[in-house]
Amino acid sequence: MARYPTNGLTLAEANGIIAAALAKGRELDLLPLTVVVLDAGGQVKAIQREDGASLLRPEVALGKAYGALALGLGGRELARRAQSMQGFMNALSDLAGGRAVPVPGGVLACGADGVIRGAVGISGDVSAQDEVCAVAGIEAAGLVAETGDAA
Amino acid sequence: MARYPTNGLTLAEANGIIAAALAKGRELDLLPLTVVVLDAGGQVKAIQREDGASLLRPEVALGKAYGALALGLGGRELARRAQSMQGFMNALSDLAGGRAVPVPGGVLACGADGVIRGAVGISGDVSAQDEVCAVAGIEAAGLVAETGDAA
Amino acid sequence: MARYPTNGLTLAEANGIIAAALAKGRELDLLPLTVVVLDAGGQVKAIQREDGASLLRPEVALGKAYGALALGLGGRELARRAQSMQGFMNALSDLAGGRAVPVPGGVLACGADGVIRGAVGISGDVSAQDEVCAVAGIEAAGLVAETGDAA
Amino acid sequence: MARYPTNGLTLAEANGIIAAALAKGRELDLLPLTVVVLDAGGQVKAIQREDGASLLRPEVALGKAYGALALGLGGRELARRAQSMQGFMNALSDLAGGRAVPVPGGVLACGADGVIRGAVGISGDVSAQDEVCAVAGIEAAGLVAETGDAA
Repeated sequence: MARYPTNGLTLAEANGIIAAALAKGRELDLLPLTVVVLDAGGQVKAIQREDGASLLRPEVALGKAYGALALGLGGRELARRAQSMQGFMNALSDLAGGRAVPVPGGVLACGADGVIRGAVGISGDVSAQDEVCAVAGIEAAGLVAETGDAA
Repeated sequence: MARYPTNGLTLAEANGIIAAALAKGRELDLLPLTVVVLDAGGQVKAIQREDGASLLRPEVALGKAYGALALGLGGRELARRAQSMQGFMNALSDLAGGRAVPVPGGVLACGADGVIRGAVGISGDVSAQDEVCAVAGIEAAGLVAETGDAA
Repeated sequence: MARYPTNGLTLAEANGIIAAALAKGRELDLLPLTVVVLDAGGQVKAIQREDGASLLRPEVALGKAYGALALGLGGRELARRAQSMQGFMNALSDLAGGRAVPVPGGVLACGADGVIRGAVGISGDVSAQDEVCAVAGIEAAGLVAETGDAA
Repeated sequence: MARYPTNGLTLAEANGIIAAALAKGRELDLLPLTVVVLDAGGQVKAIQREDGASLLRPEVALGKAYGALALGLGGRELARRAQSMQGFMNALSDLAGGRAVPVPGGVLACGADGVIRGAVGISGDVSAQDEVCAVAGIEAAGLVAETGDAA
């Protein structure tokens, strides 16, 4: 039977990213987080939602991760474009069925060679804190986090 | 700040269900599985997709679990109704945006008191094997599996 | 800047598949064909629609290719399941937003090692002829065609 | 059997436009591009996505081309209206299911007589560069490019 290739992150890596991201959230005493990890093709590898998270968190977290993969840009850069190119970002959201949430907390996970291996989206606390946890998870897995920071 | 209640399964329980279900799949040497765990309100608690799973597995697994919660019936009973009440099940699928997949592998997870605490959906191998793994995961968490078996 | 990996077929391979598939269609004097080539992650690599094709051909061809990737099965096997598991296939179509067309003409393109590198969907003539052209295109690219034929 | 008319561009012309547009992109060393060519009726004639393009590029490129045909205006003019008539453009995006992306890079392809024969949409680099390649492709096919430039 035909077999599917792994396109970027493995499930073991995705689970490691989530564990480290949630540990960071507990360390910082944040609100309940939902973490979504997608492979390089935008397919779900793993999702975990902490108890007490509000209803739409998986969809928001997935939209942050997918939006980053959609254009190859971290959520911070998408947020800047949502201000400077509002019509474009509205259209992008429609095109993506809503899965292009332009705020911090959607972070690309790259290898040391700069090749995208997947993306992480977190929702639950304020966007900047969500992003801190996504970066912590990605770095704990030995990968490079691309947040869309201009610096 | 307002806090959300836990509606059935905790994240720790959901992770335990997935770990046991995937272990059963490896024990039986099944095709790569995707496991979705929903709480009693139909919200995602956790998803894991094994490496090599085909593209739409998370959606199919979620549809099995959500379909079971939609009518309060295990996937086996939904499958019977898809044969005897075809128009109804087609309408249900439309109503649910496709998230009512009427085949074995969508299993309700209940307490000893019969109260629904969530649902598990698995997709990847043939439906009967998917269901075996869902039941194994639910029972490993000390819960009662309701498959929709008429017996 | 972060770079995307190639997930299976390259654009050069996709263009080669389409050229060979359309040549086969002209050799057999078929109706105007539309050919869609997706990579292993279900993303569009290339599409060509011959002059005179009817309106929805790109969507149908894409649905054949995506459906094959969705479950990792060629269109012939999806067609069999659409008969034996009608409720399941109706739900699958809804889940996929219609992109799971269960007829011959959706064919997986695999390497000699059995790993899926993409899928080809063709629509325009009768399904069996569409499939002949998809197989011709895949084999011209040195890949192995998986049609879902039980034999 | 009833035959469909060709409504504007032929497939041979569409393939020529794409080849010239991608050659321009390589000459300018741009990021990986996706090129969509639609006929005058808004139907897909051909799409090619270069290796390494991010996930949603075909949808964005199609939205640029379709948006130009939707109102008979190049993407530059749509971008101006997205600023001056924001509510209208948001509604247009919804009406078009997102396929009305109001930025440069959606260009009408007209005959010497001014009759629209189709549209080209490109996404991958910054919008102004995408547009340069669309114009190069259209002119290589002996057609007149309408970008929506006010000049």
